[in-house]
Amino acid sequence: MFRFDLQAQSGAARAGMFYTPHGAIPTPVFAPVGTQATVKAIQPRELYELDATLILSNTYHLYMRPGDDLIARMGGLHRFMAWDRPILTDSGGFQVFSLGALRHIDDDGVTFRSHLDGSVHRFTPEKSIQIQHNLGADVIMCFDECPKPHDRDEVRAACERTHAWALRCVEAHQRNGHADQQALFGIVQGGVFPDLRAESARFLTDLDFVGYAVGGLAVGESKSEMLATLDQTMPLLPADRPRYLMGVGSPEDLVNGVARGVDIFDCVLPTRTARHGAALTRQGRINMRNLEHAEDSAPLEAGCTCYTCTHFSRAYLRHLVKTNELLGHQLLTLHNLHLLLTLMREMRAAILDGTFAVYAANFLATYRPTSKEASAPPSL
Amino acid sequence: MFRFDLQAQSGAARAGMFYTPHGAIPTPVFAPVGTQATVKAIQPRELYELDATLILSNTYHLYMRPGDDLIARMGGLHRFMAWDRPILTDSGGFQVFSLGALRHIDDDGVTFRSHLDGSVHRFTPEKSIQIQHNLGADVIMCFDECPKPHDRDEVRAACERTHAWALRCVEAHQRNGHADQQALFGIVQGGVFPDLRAESARFLTDLDFVGYAVGGLAVGESKSEMLATLDQTMPLLPADRPRYLMGVGSPEDLVNGVARGVDIFDCVLPTRTARHGAALTRQGRINMRNLEHAEDSAPLEAGCTCYTCTHFSRAYLRHLVKTNELLGHQLLTLHNLHLLLTLMREMRAAILDGTFAVYAANFLATYRPTSKEASAPPSL
Repeated sequence: MFRFDLQAQSGAARAGMFYTPHGAIPTPVFAPVGTQATVKAIQPRELYELDATLILSNTYHLYMRPGDDLIARMGGLHRFMAWDRPILTDSGGFQVFSLGALRHIDDDGVTFRSHLDGSVHRFTPEKSIQIQHNLGADVIMCFDECPKPHDRDEVRAACERTHAWALRCVEAHQRNGHADQQALFGIVQGGVFPDLRAESARFLTDLDFVGYAVGGLAVGESKSEMLATLDQTMPLLPADRPRYLMGVGSPEDLVNGVARGVDIFDCVLPTRTARHGAALTRQGRINMRNLEHAEDSAPLEAGCTCYTCTHFSRAYLRHLVKTNELLGHQLLTLHNLHLLLTLMREMRAAILDGTFAVYAANFLATYRPTSKEASAPPSL
Repeated sequence: MFRFDLQAQSGAARAGMFYTPHGAIPTPVFAPVGTQATVKAIQPRELYELDATLILSNTYHLYMRPGDDLIARMGGLHRFMAWDRPILTDSGGFQVFSLGALRHIDDDGVTFRSHLDGSVHRFTPEKSIQIQHNLGADVIMCFDECPKPHDRDEVRAACERTHAWALRCVEAHQRNGHADQQALFGIVQGGVFPDLRAESARFLTDLDFVGYAVGGLAVGESKSEMLATLDQTMPLLPADRPRYLMGVGSPEDLVNGVARGVDIFDCVLPTRTARHGAALTRQGRINMRNLEHAEDSAPLEAGCTCYTCTHFSRAYLRHLVKTNELLGHQLLTLHNLHLLLTLMREMRAAILDGTFAVYAANFLATYRPTSKEASAPPSL
């Protein structure tokens, strides 16, 4: 049921088609995040309208509420949330490690307390795979340990654990008989250390996963460290498998990631930014609370074809944001997702045309990143 | 620009067509409430999809934020909120009277403090009309005093003030030259006292308004008092003018109101109920938090054709409500408005068919009202 066709390359940038049980995903692709089985403030029919082809949902959150077993009894996550295109679930690892003092890691797994009610739970590689089987996403992820990127001893230990757990995930996934319906991806760790990244890539590619994620980025390293790690790690992954950069999604990071051969991205940035009252544009981020928009009859972004930009002024959007109206969240979410999904389509077309280098250079020349625009990992 | 054609009657129930500068409104009609220039949690394109033909917006709130003068400079309320069908604005009177200790009433007007920042403001009949001219709604309302319904002395004094203010509103409206673009409605007061209602109706109909509201209901009187007041007051209003029952909108109140000759309703009930996690149905109200829905794969309401009911289960809606997801507000708002707007269309069809009495009896026989379903006046 799974196949990845590499259709074109433009430098390191790749255009491909990733076939899954719920449809084909043209790559490079950005996956909006639907943490709790909903991409916040947007309806599935609007995601279809935006031509989103893949969304991510979170194993930890769905395990907590409403429970992966309940979702399985309701026919799986696709039916539960009325989304019939591909879904990717994370392993839950990142969330439980984020619990800090509320969790304890050992070689077998992680014991943690719920952020909701303090109840005690345990995730192991086998448990993560079982939950992801219950949810039924097209792409599921190995349970890994994501360390802080700069402490070599910590990173090395996390790599060893990640590799041992990857073996257990593969075994649990094969034992369960879901491999024709769900593709398991491996996650390369190694922090900012090239030799550890190389060792991790070698270990995981030997396991012959359907796809590979580069993990442990966008978690505290600098932008240049992130890009250097991609430069070094991407060529170590098999060309005929999709490559996924987890938790990354600012406009400039998407362009820089595609330029280095990334096929799949996900990030809460566009949806979370919207709920914080800010818009993403090709020129940079706009804080809609600013007084300068109070009587501006122009759209958020000139030339944008989204529902928000074709119907509403900056003045109206500022009013919605200032009065905390839900419609403000909805309209900014629509625009922000429209921008990122459009960027991905434009990059794919440029790769197929052989003009990606020019496209990327032009985009980055006019884009003004702000400190707030760092890629945002999911948080509790 | 304004005309009301009475097309059919079925008992006291009326079907008509109210022509305004932004289009014709088939009556009886329910107007969703867009307090701050947005019907909460729903987009204008969705209101078109639901075939809403009239919405209400609030003078007090828009005067405060973003300011009626700003809206005028932005081309008026229709353009500002991207809604090109008819709008009705209230006078702001109800909101400033609701401020309680923060306001002082005299014969000339009301001085009050903002609920937002405590700043001091003053509304008079002339000021209310000026604000409503700036907003530019198709239907605007006289600035009136809405008393508690049972204190005869208070009600009598409020009637006298309401009548004096109505004269000033008419004069301000004519002086401004907006009468061809905006229709001014008078508001009948009189609490639960038939003689005071009759006197108020007589005074106001002498002023020859484009339409008439029955005010001072759904503010603390019993349901039977409300219906008795409608029974007594409706026949006193001219048959060739639209009749508006302010702040009323539970399913049973809509049916009972139409049965007594009401043409126009508005209420925050369907939208506010949705944000509180409850659905309106033909059988009564459903609290979506209840455990009984946790694994229910059925839609909210069997046979309902709205987006929510045709795509999502009760189990999913309960999950959204329990996790405070914005999509829960959106989907329940869609359903609740769909139900009330569908009821209005069904009642209109039944009146045109001459079968309204049967329709109303059947509806009320299966509808189970709850105490929480009392019509809800707008609040701050």
